[in-house]
Amino acid sequence: MIVIMKSNATKEQLERVVNRVKKEGLDVQINQGKDHVVIGLLGDTKTIQDVAFNSYDGVENTVKISNTYKLTSREFHPQDTVVDVNGVKIGGTENFVTMAGPCSIEGLDQIRECARIAKAGGAQILRGGAFKPRTSPYAFQGLEEEGLKYIRQAADELGMQVITEVMDEGHIDMVAAYSDILQIGARNMQNFKLLQAVGKTGKPIGLKRGISGTIDEWLNAAEYIAVQNNHQVIFIERGIRTYETATRNTFDLSAVPLMKKLSHFPIIVDPSHGTGIWDLVPPMARAGVASGADGMIVEIHPDPANAWSDGPQSLNEKTYMNMMKEVQIMEKAMREIQALEK
Amino acid sequence: MIVIMKSNATKEQLERVVNRVKKEGLDVQINQGKDHVVIGLLGDTKTIQDVAFNSYDGVENTVKISNTYKLTSREFHPQDTVVDVNGVKIGGTENFVTMAGPCSIEGLDQIRECARIAKAGGAQILRGGAFKPRTSPYAFQGLEEEGLKYIRQAADELGMQVITEVMDEGHIDMVAAYSDILQIGARNMQNFKLLQAVGKTGKPIGLKRGISGTIDEWLNAAEYIAVQNNHQVIFIERGIRTYETATRNTFDLSAVPLMKKLSHFPIIVDPSHGTGIWDLVPPMARAGVASGADGMIVEIHPDPANAWSDGPQSLNEKTYMNMMKEVQIMEKAMREIQALEK
Amino acid sequence: MIVIMKSNATKEQLERVVNRVKKEGLDVQINQGKDHVVIGLLGDTKTIQDVAFNSYDGVENTVKISNTYKLTSREFHPQDTVVDVNGVKIGGTENFVTMAGPCSIEGLDQIRECARIAKAGGAQILRGGAFKPRTSPYAFQGLEEEGLKYIRQAADELGMQVITEVMDEGHIDMVAAYSDILQIGARNMQNFKLLQAVGKTGKPIGLKRGISGTIDEWLNAAEYIAVQNNHQVIFIERGIRTYETATRNTFDLSAVPLMKKLSHFPIIVDPSHGTGIWDLVPPMARAGVASGADGMIVEIHPDPANAWSDGPQSLNEKTYMNMMKEVQIMEKAMREIQALEK
Amino acid sequence: MIVIMKSNATKEQLERVVNRVKKEGLDVQINQGKDHVVIGLLGDTKTIQDVAFNSYDGVENTVKISNTYKLTSREFHPQDTVVDVNGVKIGGTENFVTMAGPCSIEGLDQIRECARIAKAGGAQILRGGAFKPRTSPYAFQGLEEEGLKYIRQAADELGMQVITEVMDEGHIDMVAAYSDILQIGARNMQNFKLLQAVGKTGKPIGLKRGISGTIDEWLNAAEYIAVQNNHQVIFIERGIRTYETATRNTFDLSAVPLMKKLSHFPIIVDPSHGTGIWDLVPPMARAGVASGADGMIVEIHPDPANAWSDGPQSLNEKTYMNMMKEVQIMEKAMREIQALEK
Repeated sequence: MIVIMKSNATKEQLERVVNRVKKEGLDVQINQGKDHVVIGLLGDTKTIQDVAFNSYDGVENTVKISNTYKLTSREFHPQDTVVDVNGVKIGGTENFVTMAGPCSIEGLDQIRECARIAKAGGAQILRGGAFKPRTSPYAFQGLEEEGLKYIRQAADELGMQVITEVMDEGHIDMVAAYSDILQIGARNMQNFKLLQAVGKTGKPIGLKRGISGTIDEWLNAAEYIAVQNNHQVIFIERGIRTYETATRNTFDLSAVPLMKKLSHFPIIVDPSHGTGIWDLVPPMARAGVASGADGMIVEIHPDPANAWSDGPQSLNEKTYMNMMKEVQIMEKAMREIQALEK
Repeated sequence: MIVIMKSNATKEQLERVVNRVKKEGLDVQINQGKDHVVIGLLGDTKTIQDVAFNSYDGVENTVKISNTYKLTSREFHPQDTVVDVNGVKIGGTENFVTMAGPCSIEGLDQIRECARIAKAGGAQILRGGAFKPRTSPYAFQGLEEEGLKYIRQAADELGMQVITEVMDEGHIDMVAAYSDILQIGARNMQNFKLLQAVGKTGKPIGLKRGISGTIDEWLNAAEYIAVQNNHQVIFIERGIRTYETATRNTFDLSAVPLMKKLSHFPIIVDPSHGTGIWDLVPPMARAGVASGADGMIVEIHPDPANAWSDGPQSLNEKTYMNMMKEVQIMEKAMREIQALEK
Repeated sequence: MIVIMKSNATKEQLERVVNRVKKEGLDVQINQGKDHVVIGLLGDTKTIQDVAFNSYDGVENTVKISNTYKLTSREFHPQDTVVDVNGVKIGGTENFVTMAGPCSIEGLDQIRECARIAKAGGAQILRGGAFKPRTSPYAFQGLEEEGLKYIRQAADELGMQVITEVMDEGHIDMVAAYSDILQIGARNMQNFKLLQAVGKTGKPIGLKRGISGTIDEWLNAAEYIAVQNNHQVIFIERGIRTYETATRNTFDLSAVPLMKKLSHFPIIVDPSHGTGIWDLVPPMARAGVASGADGMIVEIHPDPANAWSDGPQSLNEKTYMNMMKEVQIMEKAMREIQALEK
Repeated sequence: MIVIMKSNATKEQLERVVNRVKKEGLDVQINQGKDHVVIGLLGDTKTIQDVAFNSYDGVENTVKISNTYKLTSREFHPQDTVVDVNGVKIGGTENFVTMAGPCSIEGLDQIRECARIAKAGGAQILRGGAFKPRTSPYAFQGLEEEGLKYIRQAADELGMQVITEVMDEGHIDMVAAYSDILQIGARNMQNFKLLQAVGKTGKPIGLKRGISGTIDEWLNAAEYIAVQNNHQVIFIERGIRTYETATRNTFDLSAVPLMKKLSHFPIIVDPSHGTGIWDLVPPMARAGVASGADGMIVEIHPDPANAWSDGPQSLNEKTYMNMMKEVQIMEKAMREIQALEK
């Protein structure tokens, strides 16, 4: 951490800052610039990151140099983490994993039909919501445990894995009994108690980026899970909220290579929520592969026009199958590119 | 709800939409424009708000006409709701209520000293966090129940009320035992299970706007509380996340008159989080009064430079007392203005 | 400027940075932290602000300590600048100046009627657009020079001053012949050639904040004018673009006290564009006074429902007159508050 | 256009709206819903898009159904437009065109060296700035005409085309004398006079998206050019301003397929400005190809650490050549995918 004094700061103001730093057991190095005195803090500044140096008289600004996350950082763990979901491997450079399914589980027949389509296109993991976070209390909130049973059965019949959202600490045990990956939704990226609690399950966690989550907050959210000794985190980029309303969210695909620089955990993309418009999903799925993502999660429905939720962004069987052919061509191209790098 | 067909939509595509609407028990009125056919849905469209008309072939767009919130709306309840916190009345036009205290409860002496200052300046409600949502898992997370005991004691000694945040369903009973108002923090505005659970306590709820919460989402979040038959909601505008980094958040003061148009619940402002810079707090507190807010919540600390959190935005005794004098002059001016309107 | 090296930077990488700094005639101070080496640059770093230290191997980050604006800064000129528009003084603490008028000048009768209303309410400056920036090329673009003649005549008849927008370098002489203040619109805040050209006129410049202009960019835009030896800049806060669509823009009122800290130039507010909704204008005008603004600019129209543009945010005679009474009460309150401070 | 009346609107308020519509020569269709009366306007509503129906008493909201752009829309011109830059074709599905070069032209040797590298990697068009828009008036502003001469010479020696920015109406003739494509920078997307003026040159125009430009504003900006009978527009997605600061901008790659749906003009991507970080450029260039873009524009420099501007986002010879190999593999994959669709 660096503390920058105002150009007109007094000697006493400087001393007051220095004394506080020393009181915390750290040492300082004082840098007399042309206009500003700059104080460098030497030692483990994690202990004083909460000190409000900005409110000391004579202080202009403070700059943090170290990140607050450790276990999540690429510096701490230089190799890619590969999350193993009962044999389906996410991360590393070998393959691109697809998770597909409906927004909401609507019944056994529907989720079975989705599973059939998902698998036919090459998906290995079945998605589907049993607990749905909805803006309005009057909107459909999900089939809850009944839905969990249906998705488990549909997946088991075809040898697929399951990812589904858990919204509430009280439901973790129930959801964990049916699902292979626990998904934390965008609205809960900073629900810290929930992060700690799912961390403790030891299960793989699909951690969606918050609706307006920064890269730094997202990495710190993963840290809440990792400090529970759970290193099975999968980041899910799903678009962020911006001024642009032509798409449901602004799909921040640059987050893929950026997160890969900063963290060792795998990252997948969600072009369905990222765009909110079904015919933008295939090009953005291709772009996701090309950006270096480790996989994707997409919404499909046998009959999007009659879906109970998120129909406008769902692919039907035909558009999904076409997209998956394109994705396979992209995956092959990426393998060629990886071969170049060697 | 209105469904707008594409200019090149076929008759069959039109019929498919109309049939679906009728299947849901509603009637339609068809409007043949120059370029577009527009279908108006007649009846209670709440039942079909989840239908994905956007994914029907030939549909260009859909427009919602009715809001999804009812109990929260000014239409439903034209008079101002006055929330009564053990005699302290929030809402209506009579008075402007101040809540003041530290970001974090740091100990009994500290919260007592804050209470003394708060009350001396005219605050009737004492704020202070015992459970702190923190971006990093390594940051100070609050004194928890110990802190709750301290704030209750400090408030009781001076005849003040208490507001404090509850972050987790599992802590509601504990927090409710010590606090007069339960605060829902910005990160939890769409933690729907938590909203339902605090709604059931029947206690007054301070509902902060989400970090990137829209006006519409905020009103719907209140609806989650109101459907639990709890009509004691207090909105708290605390700034939103935008591209501007010169202030901690962008303090959206226009939300005050807008929310008052749309809802009958009171709204207070939080200039401390709204700006994040202590010397912007007094002018924005004055502006809050002038905008028509029903009160404010501000952070104070006997020694901001040594506060455990949020020091840069905390007022000390002197700056707080000065601000409160200014606020009182503003309140008097607002009473003159209200007299004009009669 | 400070350059922060990566934790694993080599000695050679460090030397490469240091040599470049010295080549530019500056000196360095090297700060060996626990994890990072931090290099402080000593001397006038303005000359090397374009050096891409971030792309040197081994560099983690750079931090600018000094601002790039000088003439605009409060440090450079501690007293408030008072802009004198033919006797109407904007800035300082004496008075709050109102500019009022229609969005577009529609004809002589209309602008005369607007001037009558504006003056009756207490405005000293008449606004009205003769050149209108419009998103669509098919929308009404303004009466151009004919409009300028009308607004000049209407203002002269009542002894008012004129503010109107200039969009184009080629029109500066024409607009300057009729207008007392040249307004730079939000879309042109970073039209640097236009800024330089209006600067050279020596006229007072009303500089609107850009649609997504940062505080820092806005101050630098003023610097483009000030380096032309024109120190008659008036900042106009008019709301910024954010994710929120319930209001036309997000009115960033905290910018008022913040700009007053950072710069000596006066700042006025535009609650009409800030909110886009006429019945939010009076409360936000009051809030503008309370925030410490030096004045405001508002849209009025004798018949908003028939205005050629911006009708939804225009006040009519009655609502404007009521607002001005409220504003006067607020001004009086602010004078009491200023008296407190002495 | 549709006008939605309030649930409590009176018959007279309804009539007032209807009369105004009829006065403009349009007809209405009245739709009596359960809660709201909805008025559909029949006829060419372009003439009344400026009427402020929102400010009529009793009106709740208005909804525009038709776009304000025509010549730019895909509806108007269903086939892809192919812009021909002296034989280099941009648009259609045949090829992906690369434009490469430095941010600023720094001298003849530098731009020649950039041209050599650019061409070696496969770029056909040379970029380089002679007029630079800079936030601070003290920053380097470009070599102006001298720079234009250098880039023209460097391109001619290798048979390349030139793209460079024009910031000012007064420089259009000069820039057009040296450059094959005139680039409109992000800050000027809504500089309407400049758009009209470059439109009149008949030259191909590279139209960057504004810093916070919406999709709709961008399409309308193209319309300003197209109404000058210039149908040689190339959209350039270069990232938008959001709350996220980890990248320079948020690169909105979904804009590629979306713009292709809405408009017939080609669109290319700028991953250098889109991310601002050189090692994110190659993955985002690959993603750009995969999203269906018609080309890209990237910043390269023989020695980024010594570039006069934008060094942090510039590729050097080696990283650029590697990227271009990857881009070629992606292009091949896209041709396979296009073959699938047939």
